[in-house]
Amino acid sequence: MRFSISDAEYKSRIERVRKVLAKRKLDALYLTNGTSMFYLTGYSFISTERPAALVLPVDGKITFIGPLLEKDHVPLETRFIEDVRTYVDYPGEKHPIEHFADFLRDMGLAKKRIGTDSKDGAVGLWGYRGPSLMKKLSEAEFVDASDIVSEMRLVKSEEEIVLMRESAKWANLATSLLQEYSEEGLWDVDVELAAMHQTSIAMKKTLGSDYQPKRSIIPVSAVFRGQIGEMSAIPHSIATKRTIRRGDVIIGEVGVDVGGYSCELERTMIVGEPTAKQKRYFNVMLKAQEAAFETFKPDAKCGDVDKATINVFKKNGLIHLVKHHTGHGLGLEMHEPPWLDIGNDEPLRSGMIVSCEPGIYEVGFAGFRHSDTVLITGDGAELLTYYPRDLGSLTI
Amino acid sequence: MRFSISDAEYKSRIERVRKVLAKRKLDALYLTNGTSMFYLTGYSFISTERPAALVLPVDGKITFIGPLLEKDHVPLETRFIEDVRTYVDYPGEKHPIEHFADFLRDMGLAKKRIGTDSKDGAVGLWGYRGPSLMKKLSEAEFVDASDIVSEMRLVKSEEEIVLMRESAKWANLATSLLQEYSEEGLWDVDVELAAMHQTSIAMKKTLGSDYQPKRSIIPVSAVFRGQIGEMSAIPHSIATKRTIRRGDVIIGEVGVDVGGYSCELERTMIVGEPTAKQKRYFNVMLKAQEAAFETFKPDAKCGDVDKATINVFKKNGLIHLVKHHTGHGLGLEMHEPPWLDIGNDEPLRSGMIVSCEPGIYEVGFAGFRHSDTVLITGDGAELLTYYPRDLGSLTI
Repeated sequence: MRFSISDAEYKSRIERVRKVLAKRKLDALYLTNGTSMFYLTGYSFISTERPAALVLPVDGKITFIGPLLEKDHVPLETRFIEDVRTYVDYPGEKHPIEHFADFLRDMGLAKKRIGTDSKDGAVGLWGYRGPSLMKKLSEAEFVDASDIVSEMRLVKSEEEIVLMRESAKWANLATSLLQEYSEEGLWDVDVELAAMHQTSIAMKKTLGSDYQPKRSIIPVSAVFRGQIGEMSAIPHSIATKRTIRRGDVIIGEVGVDVGGYSCELERTMIVGEPTAKQKRYFNVMLKAQEAAFETFKPDAKCGDVDKATINVFKKNGLIHLVKHHTGHGLGLEMHEPPWLDIGNDEPLRSGMIVSCEPGIYEVGFAGFRHSDTVLITGDGAELLTYYPRDLGSLTI
Repeated sequence: MRFSISDAEYKSRIERVRKVLAKRKLDALYLTNGTSMFYLTGYSFISTERPAALVLPVDGKITFIGPLLEKDHVPLETRFIEDVRTYVDYPGEKHPIEHFADFLRDMGLAKKRIGTDSKDGAVGLWGYRGPSLMKKLSEAEFVDASDIVSEMRLVKSEEEIVLMRESAKWANLATSLLQEYSEEGLWDVDVELAAMHQTSIAMKKTLGSDYQPKRSIIPVSAVFRGQIGEMSAIPHSIATKRTIRRGDVIIGEVGVDVGGYSCELERTMIVGEPTAKQKRYFNVMLKAQEAAFETFKPDAKCGDVDKATINVFKKNGLIHLVKHHTGHGLGLEMHEPPWLDIGNDEPLRSGMIVSCEPGIYEVGFAGFRHSDTVLITGDGAELLTYYPRDLGSLTI
């Protein structure tokens, strides 16, 4: 089985970029975003304080410029980076950005027009300091071109959909283990690591010896993130000290790396017999999600999906408990465009993949949110994630 | 046992910032970096495409401005954020940055001088697009003040050192489990998740019911990151598909969240009887690390530590295998200043905590690197990590 994007698709992505560059009269694209680099070449690396960039000239070799420690890594990950130029380390005796200016001059790009996703030439993590590449290479004209790769990533290809579908299968296993292992007295971290471990092992044994995650160290993320009991009312909680109790609402969240892509699968579960109030909130959340499902089709506005869930919450008198919009695109990043947000009039398009996750949250009580991964098709939509969504199936 | 920074220390950090602001004639500090926000208030949140900032006025309430989904989260994490102002979601019917301009006007900061760590008012993750806050609030004068919190974080307090010391204890357990569980035929992911699981459970049972990670979902990261056999020659590898074999060099890396702080503990291990070449490389690496240890003391130049390891590698004819500098500061981030780099003339100071991790890497063969967490003391240095470093102890 193949677990990554084919060479043919990488070639066509690169060709598309070159066509846009030519059309905009740009001589090269200078990218610092690691996800964009992965999208164009299949090369995945750990972004740090050390500046790194991909230089994609209209004519000439696709070149990675970055720290020496990536030099031997590049050819193991991709055939599409044709040259690697490095500095030893950051900050160095000569600043990496000074090296970058030299590399670009040497590539014949000094007096050219260069599209870029960066304001100063580096991503600038972890206490990084440095001069602006644009000032160091002031003979060149840099223009914002951060939309090029973003726009390409909006609609998924057949190959990308295959990877997302495979990711959804293993997310199903991980969610079923989160549910199976959850019980009174356990810390959520205990349940999470057991589910992550067993799912990772099962994937490797099932998919065969060639499987490995491409952009994650651990292939499976299966967590509650502290969303246990009253902490489930905090949609972006990080952790909790307390253990699972009878009566708790708990929210599990799963992602699985297949070829660097991941679906999103989240389920609200209830430990023990649900109370009337838990039932009511759960079922309103479910209705809102179903209302959103009804709206998914090509040319529907992203904002209309959000409106559909807002209407359900309003009708049921729970709109004051809504804390975020209905969903977001996904694939290579945790969140990515398009945004299923009332302020977004952009149309859905066939091949887009989005999360659908309307939620309600009452402080001191609980939160209620499922998230499914939805593929927009030629005439409607298909749920890539298929774990049961009804209260009966999610009662522990 | 306390697992976080005291209120008294947060107060004093905030006071220090206000003194610097007053000295620089700044009316407020506007921060978008989540680590800086945590450092000043203890509030930890997940940075996303949704803009978020901490506004710390010289006079007036410390205010978090950000998405609605963080509103109820803030008071659970900190007492030091006195006001929370939110927009519903991104991109919204009105862009978050427009809201931010309104919030700052409403706080009386419209015509003031504001220090900031941001170029446009948002961190800009995951496909975020937006106007510049500096343009939307052009009546205000924004000036770069990203050095204020960075500078404060350079030297660790007694309380920070206590947390790092505790982190080092659990890193020791996790490393010993990585070593114990590693055997022929296992995938590194299998060993990693077993070590992470057992260490997390042991921490919770030992430290008591109040323990929880502050900035990580999973308290313990214990990984090889694919550094197995010939892939150990790639210092920033991410994953490998192959399983552990007899004769492999493997490199384990551990970090543990105690109050949001973490040490770094890495060990090169050999599966089976080491060959003569493995022994030679291992022992040269060890000599280089020991040479670095000798140089640590207040007022020594950071670059001199790097020079000490370079000299050992040169003397032993292995300098061509060096791919990175000797180390970096740590505490709240994976890497942070000061950089133990030949290009860095800054002096070490008592209370700084740095990694010490000279390494050598031969493509197709293996890599050799330990990393220890070193506290600079009044008259020298102390290793906070204490796992055995000699080849005999690290032979599996």
